Amino acid sequence: MNPSKTGFEKKRETVAPGIVKTIDSVSNPTIKSIRGLVSQRKHRKESGLFVAEGLKLATDALDANWTVQTLIYGHEVREQEAVSQTAAKTRARGGTVLEVSRQVLSSITRRDNPQMVVGVYKQKTLSVDEIKPAEYAIWIGLDTVRDPGNLGTIIRTADAVGAAGVVLIGETTDPFAVEAVRATMGSVFHVPIAKCSREQFKKWIVNWPGQVAGTHLNGAVDYRTVKYDGPCFLLMGNEQAGLPDDMADTCKTLVRIPQAGQADSLNLAIATGVMLFEICRERLKL
Amino acid sequence: MNPSKTGFEKKRETVAPGIVKTIDSVSNPTIKSIRGLVSQRKHRKESGLFVAEGLKLATDALDANWTVQTLIYGHEVREQEAVSQTAAKTRARGGTVLEVSRQVLSSITRRDNPQMVVGVYKQKTLSVDEIKPAEYAIWIGLDTVRDPGNLGTIIRTADAVGAAGVVLIGETTDPFAVEAVRATMGSVFHVPIAKCSREQFKKWIVNWPGQVAGTHLNGAVDYRTVKYDGPCFLLMGNEQAGLPDDMADTCKTLVRIPQAGQADSLNLAIATGVMLFEICRERLKL
Repeated sequence: MNPSKTGFEKKRETVAPGIVKTIDSVSNPTIKSIRGLVSQRKHRKESGLFVAEGLKLATDALDANWTVQTLIYGHEVREQEAVSQTAAKTRARGGTVLEVSRQVLSSITRRDNPQMVVGVYKQKTLSVDEIKPAEYAIWIGLDTVRDPGNLGTIIRTADAVGAAGVVLIGETTDPFAVEAVRATMGSVFHVPIAKCSREQFKKWIVNWPGQVAGTHLNGAVDYRTVKYDGPCFLLMGNEQAGLPDDMADTCKTLVRIPQAGQADSLNLAIATGVMLFEICRERLKL
Repeated sequence: MNPSKTGFEKKRETVAPGIVKTIDSVSNPTIKSIRGLVSQRKHRKESGLFVAEGLKLATDALDANWTVQTLIYGHEVREQEAVSQTAAKTRARGGTVLEVSRQVLSSITRRDNPQMVVGVYKQKTLSVDEIKPAEYAIWIGLDTVRDPGNLGTIIRTADAVGAAGVVLIGETTDPFAVEAVRATMGSVFHVPIAKCSREQFKKWIVNWPGQVAGTHLNGAVDYRTVKYDGPCFLLMGNEQAGLPDDMADTCKTLVRIPQAGQADSLNLAIATGVMLFEICRERLKL
């Protein structure tokens, strides 16, 4: 991997002369650090950064006024118009652009067939005290959610119903893990994420001005018969245990999603999706 | 890994004297073959077998009158009552029981922290011509579904709403891949799975006696305003492309799930779940 200097310079100019850095070694320290953002939650926590794969997500991020801290793309796509534009926008907002080998992209994303564009972004989270619920807002609380795919899918669904945000309660999986970000399909850049401990949550939710509905196997009422008034807070338990009693006690209404078959329960993301679409339906009085 | 013969014999007797075979080598041919069921679709296809992890799934399978062809459990759990009972039932129905090392279980399931019980089962699929839809049955058709996690989650949701079965249309991901089976959470043993090509499907669905509803971005009607009469067939497109035109043409009604936010689309399993719960709701006239 040592292209002639001339050939290289020429191609670099199609993006922006003299600014794009080229890295072909997987052991380059910058690449190692980016790889750490994918593989280590600790590294994500300490740096406050995360990785999202794909050109679409980079354009989603830029459209949503996020900054791409580092944009990485493969040699193969350097001449693509959309890549050049994204690179230009990245630099215009102060980001770094790296052109790398496919091998480097594979090493970052841990995939044999990697996306040709990868971005590094700054994590954004709120504290619950920053939440000012609008009159018809829907907020979703997830207690100790475990699976990054579920979390990402819930963030994507929250976006699809126009929910105001997601509150992660207690020790949850990392919303900025690459599997979670992947499952959001870009909604990580649209849906505000707040974090709090269970103790913080219990104190905070007491003052919630509208409905606080939790799904519970022992829920007293069919989820289709409830009024989801005012700003609505939907509280969901985790994959293994559902809502523990002390968290269920924070709800104004415990609802049940009736199940007909032999399945023990619904997947968490499915249950959340069914609830969210029910809340939308009830508000439209359909 | 060479426990004293005496210790071994004693422990084996707690399950069933002289019948349980012990294997501690990952290169044992039987273990290699079982590993092949996890790693190679080709091997699953040729053998007609599949692997499901977990004691719960083995008991689900037995309760649903499936045969466990081979039950594999770790030394650590041989004294557990539930394991002994499952082993006894497995043998009573003609299955084989293997006691193995943790290392062998890890090699089969490709997990550092494997489930301590793994079962090998015979795949069961129908042809569409065997489907005799009951009056209120719900069948779900999935066109070229790609993601095993989505497929498994849809099978689990189908079970939860008491759907009659799932039809896999065209080149789909393998419902018997370990990731798909894992996501079903046992529903793979409850929900009939049929398979057909797109051409077969088009000929067959013409004679469907009730509603045939497909979700489509250009769907003419809100999914909440449709009558899901008679036996209902719900047709879903795949993750990337949705329903292609020729498949959409097989539907009596094309519906739309309205989306408010900036997300491009819903996850396929979420969209299917929302549709299934809507069909249930409509039938209950809620």
